[in-house]
Amino acid sequence: MSVDSSVSNEVQSESVLLCPQGTTAAPEQKLLCIFGTGDLGRSLGQRLLQCGYGVVYGSRRPNSCGPLPWGTKAMNHEAAAMSAALVFVCVHRENYDFLEALAPQLNGKVLVDVSNNLKKNLYPESNAEYLQRLIPGADVVKAFNTLSAWSLQNGPSDANRQVYLCGNSVQAKQAVEEMATKLGFAALDRGSLSAAGELEDFPLQLFPEWRLPLRVAVGLTAFFFFYLLMRDVVYTYVEKRKDISFRIMVSLANKVFPIVSLIMLALCYLPGVIAAYLQLYRGTKYRRFPDWLDRWMLCRKQLGLIALGFAFLHVFYTLIIPIRYYVRFRITESTISKIRENRTSVFDTTTAWRADSFYSMGILGFGLFVLLGISSLPSVSNALSWREFSFIQSKLGYLTVFFCTLHTYLYGWDKFLYLSSYKWFTPPGYLLSLVVPSVLIVLKLLLLLPCVDRSLTRIRQGWERTDPEDGSVKALLT
Amino acid sequence: MSVDSSVSNEVQSESVLLCPQGTTAAPEQKLLCIFGTGDLGRSLGQRLLQCGYGVVYGSRRPNSCGPLPWGTKAMNHEAAAMSAALVFVCVHRENYDFLEALAPQLNGKVLVDVSNNLKKNLYPESNAEYLQRLIPGADVVKAFNTLSAWSLQNGPSDANRQVYLCGNSVQAKQAVEEMATKLGFAALDRGSLSAAGELEDFPLQLFPEWRLPLRVAVGLTAFFFFYLLMRDVVYTYVEKRKDISFRIMVSLANKVFPIVSLIMLALCYLPGVIAAYLQLYRGTKYRRFPDWLDRWMLCRKQLGLIALGFAFLHVFYTLIIPIRYYVRFRITESTISKIRENRTSVFDTTTAWRADSFYSMGILGFGLFVLLGISSLPSVSNALSWREFSFIQSKLGYLTVFFCTLHTYLYGWDKFLYLSSYKWFTPPGYLLSLVVPSVLIVLKLLLLLPCVDRSLTRIRQGWERTDPEDGSVKALLT
Amino acid sequence: MSVDSSVSNEVQSESVLLCPQGTTAAPEQKLLCIFGTGDLGRSLGQRLLQCGYGVVYGSRRPNSCGPLPWGTKAMNHEAAAMSAALVFVCVHRENYDFLEALAPQLNGKVLVDVSNNLKKNLYPESNAEYLQRLIPGADVVKAFNTLSAWSLQNGPSDANRQVYLCGNSVQAKQAVEEMATKLGFAALDRGSLSAAGELEDFPLQLFPEWRLPLRVAVGLTAFFFFYLLMRDVVYTYVEKRKDISFRIMVSLANKVFPIVSLIMLALCYLPGVIAAYLQLYRGTKYRRFPDWLDRWMLCRKQLGLIALGFAFLHVFYTLIIPIRYYVRFRITESTISKIRENRTSVFDTTTAWRADSFYSMGILGFGLFVLLGISSLPSVSNALSWREFSFIQSKLGYLTVFFCTLHTYLYGWDKFLYLSSYKWFTPPGYLLSLVVPSVLIVLKLLLLLPCVDRSLTRIRQGWERTDPEDGSVKALLT
Repeated sequence: MSVDSSVSNEVQSESVLLCPQGTTAAPEQKLLCIFGTGDLGRSLGQRLLQCGYGVVYGSRRPNSCGPLPWGTKAMNHEAAAMSAALVFVCVHRENYDFLEALAPQLNGKVLVDVSNNLKKNLYPESNAEYLQRLIPGADVVKAFNTLSAWSLQNGPSDANRQVYLCGNSVQAKQAVEEMATKLGFAALDRGSLSAAGELEDFPLQLFPEWRLPLRVAVGLTAFFFFYLLMRDVVYTYVEKRKDISFRIMVSLANKVFPIVSLIMLALCYLPGVIAAYLQLYRGTKYRRFPDWLDRWMLCRKQLGLIALGFAFLHVFYTLIIPIRYYVRFRITESTISKIRENRTSVFDTTTAWRADSFYSMGILGFGLFVLLGISSLPSVSNALSWREFSFIQSKLGYLTVFFCTLHTYLYGWDKFLYLSSYKWFTPPGYLLSLVVPSVLIVLKLLLLLPCVDRSLTRIRQGWERTDPEDGSVKALLT
Repeated sequence: MSVDSSVSNEVQSESVLLCPQGTTAAPEQKLLCIFGTGDLGRSLGQRLLQCGYGVVYGSRRPNSCGPLPWGTKAMNHEAAAMSAALVFVCVHRENYDFLEALAPQLNGKVLVDVSNNLKKNLYPESNAEYLQRLIPGADVVKAFNTLSAWSLQNGPSDANRQVYLCGNSVQAKQAVEEMATKLGFAALDRGSLSAAGELEDFPLQLFPEWRLPLRVAVGLTAFFFFYLLMRDVVYTYVEKRKDISFRIMVSLANKVFPIVSLIMLALCYLPGVIAAYLQLYRGTKYRRFPDWLDRWMLCRKQLGLIALGFAFLHVFYTLIIPIRYYVRFRITESTISKIRENRTSVFDTTTAWRADSFYSMGILGFGLFVLLGISSLPSVSNALSWREFSFIQSKLGYLTVFFCTLHTYLYGWDKFLYLSSYKWFTPPGYLLSLVVPSVLIVLKLLLLLPCVDRSLTRIRQGWERTDPEDGSVKALLT
Repeated sequence: MSVDSSVSNEVQSESVLLCPQGTTAAPEQKLLCIFGTGDLGRSLGQRLLQCGYGVVYGSRRPNSCGPLPWGTKAMNHEAAAMSAALVFVCVHRENYDFLEALAPQLNGKVLVDVSNNLKKNLYPESNAEYLQRLIPGADVVKAFNTLSAWSLQNGPSDANRQVYLCGNSVQAKQAVEEMATKLGFAALDRGSLSAAGELEDFPLQLFPEWRLPLRVAVGLTAFFFFYLLMRDVVYTYVEKRKDISFRIMVSLANKVFPIVSLIMLALCYLPGVIAAYLQLYRGTKYRRFPDWLDRWMLCRKQLGLIALGFAFLHVFYTLIIPIRYYVRFRITESTISKIRENRTSVFDTTTAWRADSFYSMGILGFGLFVLLGISSLPSVSNALSWREFSFIQSKLGYLTVFFCTLHTYLYGWDKFLYLSSYKWFTPPGYLLSLVVPSVLIVLKLLLLLPCVDRSLTRIRQGWERTDPEDGSVKALLT
């Protein structure tokens, strides 16, 4: 990346010098070229200047391209390209054509493509590959496109510390890496230029893998909210003419959250069990799962984390119960009425056992759930070996499901026997929430039966069941 | 990694073509070779195909090696080796011998060793080093062995994003890195082939550094559980004929958890203090610590994190106290009996001070404890300078110990003075839990005395006390 | 890094052999040289020996340089330098001069500079660059200086797993990287030797970016503590002669924590809004913000995390309310007095709505706040695209501010209307805490007005408003 100063001097005459090169222009300063004087080019140029680089802009109209950072020059493209060994292309893809004419000047240069598109899959080819095709003699490197304009101008900030880059030339990538490090970023090599498409899609994504789980969560929450609103608030109003709508804020929320949490926790482990049954049925592990199962399995982590969020809310909604106005009022009222009516209540050991077990299971389940959440943090799961990760996520995961389901069963206890629980002939919410986890636990227990477990293990080690028909098919293939 | 197509055509006649090379077989497709048609070879081949590679299998019996992924060919080893520049060895180590005969064909090729052993230390030499010794002309790279079979077949998932690799040839490693990136993994270079043994041990480990702390935790929990069961439940039953066994679920648990948590927190900081005294006694920092101390120091983080887990449970077991059936019953009973007996109670400011300080210390201690836990997350501790990390872990750590110990002292208050606390002549649990942290705090305070601190600092800066005898030993050495 | 054994033998005579090279001295062992026999040199040498390297010390007085690790030799500098390809410089910068005379012997060697300074900016040039200037023929690599002496001697531990290195020679860096890997560390390349200054400053830093936020937190906490102490405890004592000083521990703390938390949360989002107004006023985004705003923006994350810590304490101080002695006493008293005076209280639905909404908003706000905290963990924010990170931090961030502010408004409700709230003519603490967040929310809502939003978006895309005067200035520049 040496500066060809003779060229630089030669073109000086037609370049526009915005300010005399001041204190930043040390003699050993490297000169970089930026094509394009738009926002991106100006932001980038400003940052490069701050980090001690010299910057030259390539522009179609070097004399009227608007204000540029102090200390930079604007030239025509040819002159700018020849004055530096590294050229940033800060131009929209639609305008790449003009670069073709510059092929001789760009030959052997490092071209850094920083472009992004407005939508995914707008073009069949990534911008960087298209650029490489236009100028085969240059070394195109895709980089910096995943950063925000803010970071490009002001240096790295929280989510903008890493610069992903890819390209076919190792030397070119190294030059860009070094510059990125000098700008304060951490460079991460993502391989050859064929990875450019992926890098160009990255800044456009907005939690793609969270969409399905979030939709499930919103759907379940809405359903159970209206279901319980009907059963609790509306029922009481219609049948007893009593307005208990204030219960929406805490009591109702604290029914919806645990229900959705338990169902989503079960949904997080269900696809694994279904996959096992599918493998047992097919007798092989080499056939791909149906698409819906694949998609489901890919969002298990997100399902689990959303369930953890709901469990977190459930825990805190539960813990504030004793300081609620309504609860304090009711407890005082019941004490007063007991005294006035001279009633005595007897301590029931069974109830004490049940209530304490109910809380205990809940806390243990939540504790394990938090542990699962922590182990899914990227830095923690990266530090675990695969065996450790699968131990936590499956062994401890099923223990969590078990504790949480038991917690819910202990909550219900014998309520399901009383007809009064079935207001307007609808089952209570907690009963509905138990369906999926109960099915999951039964299916999982069946898989743990020695004979089933043995078959499954063999299949997962690569063994295949050869049915008579199946065998004949293979014979035909051979 | 160019495809030698003439060889490929020549051997075509004796190869088994499972299906016509379909849409995946683009003209610029790279051909990779896999030795071994077992589960691993098939999984890997399937993944490589999906990522746009061509795959050729090397097999002893290419015509009867079972079903292979569609679009791949099986050849004999010689032909397969010659058709690709990169060969995966998906064969058990016991069967590596046959590779020696293939040395001429494998010369100059990149050999990727993906093998794992069933146990640690089965062989004196790592599999990859053994392979390199067998075929000195090839560039052996150890890689992919830390991934689960699932990830190899289906691409990266949570704990399987990183591919560790090592090898003596930089070019060979770069080729494997590029392929790993294309398969969607992040490659991490771990140096020369001598690191292979470590990589082969990695997938076998199951929380090795957690074992000792977990055993300590289980031992302490079991001991205190039975100790308190005896003192609380059995004592009440024997002496007063009253069944309070329901208290096991919450009250007893909420005594065991904080006791074990406090002891383990103190055990986490004790070895550091012991090491300081040992250095003071020896007058040098250059002699290794005894083995037991070394092992203890290496699991301090784990001791602390388990203590944090118990503290977490203690917090939530405490917070549900007011919603427990038993507690509500007793409070109501006491209010009723006060009214019936027309008693009045007087507000005691000292008790209020003590109780509120007790809770306050507990919350502050727990808050600091959570902060310590967060700072021990890999991504957080990596972002800290050593000075920052040691500030948090020692300064804030001792503050946590101090708050938690004070919390326990405030809990006990003057209970230890009353004979009724010593049921069956045993001290209450909280008194036992205070032994280790109290000793730790006293020892630490002694170390902070200016004269002791000065000696220790000098020793830690490399100064050595020369005793008369010691000096003579050194003189002999010189 | 081959061992020049002929030289090694030649200088044997004048070297001091501390012990016969024992089991660790395998024939293929690499020999490394350490200049300096101080603490650092000895610790490093011990670790290198343990990892299978041979170590030779260079010393001014090889015969009297004090005890060295067993199995190492001490020679004069010339002989030591010639016996190894890699030389560690474990000497203070002030003593670097003697190295100049060794330039011929050090020519072509890799020089590892591990030095640190006692203060920042002691010298105009980094130690490593100074060393490179002294011996231009050697390849200086800055490395290992960020590790603690403990890690250098005993291998990697939690915050000491990463070795940052920089240097101008790629080969030299690779050699050092390989050695670091062998010692158990993970090497991270930080570019050319010009990064050495930064690496030398790193170990000296102690939470530089946390200082301002911590000072703000301490200042706010102290102010509100004394303010509320005056209003609550002192006022009650002076006016009613009642000692409620015990309330300091929990009640007062639980007023100070949420107030400081809310203000700091608002302070975390305020600079972003101010910056937007500044850009609107200036009509451009290319002018740098004033220094105070820049500094403020750089510590937003820290402001937010400290606010989260205070919110955490507030939550737990709130949750223990019902188990406090004082609260239980008061509730019992109120129940008893109600019965004695035969009062009946009426359930107020509005109060129930208000109280439950108050708790609900608090929990939802805290939940979102925890989510923000998790997303600012380095490993999580690195996994997010910029769009995702800004979605969480701005959209969810403002939602958190909104919930928490609403929570506080619901707490106050109509208290501000009653004169009795203004003890000694001072407003209650919660009112003061609402000032900053209310201002923030109003300013943010103004920015969301379509016309304002459109201008701001244009400015952020690079558009500049050209005032008449401004235009003339630019004309002059051109």
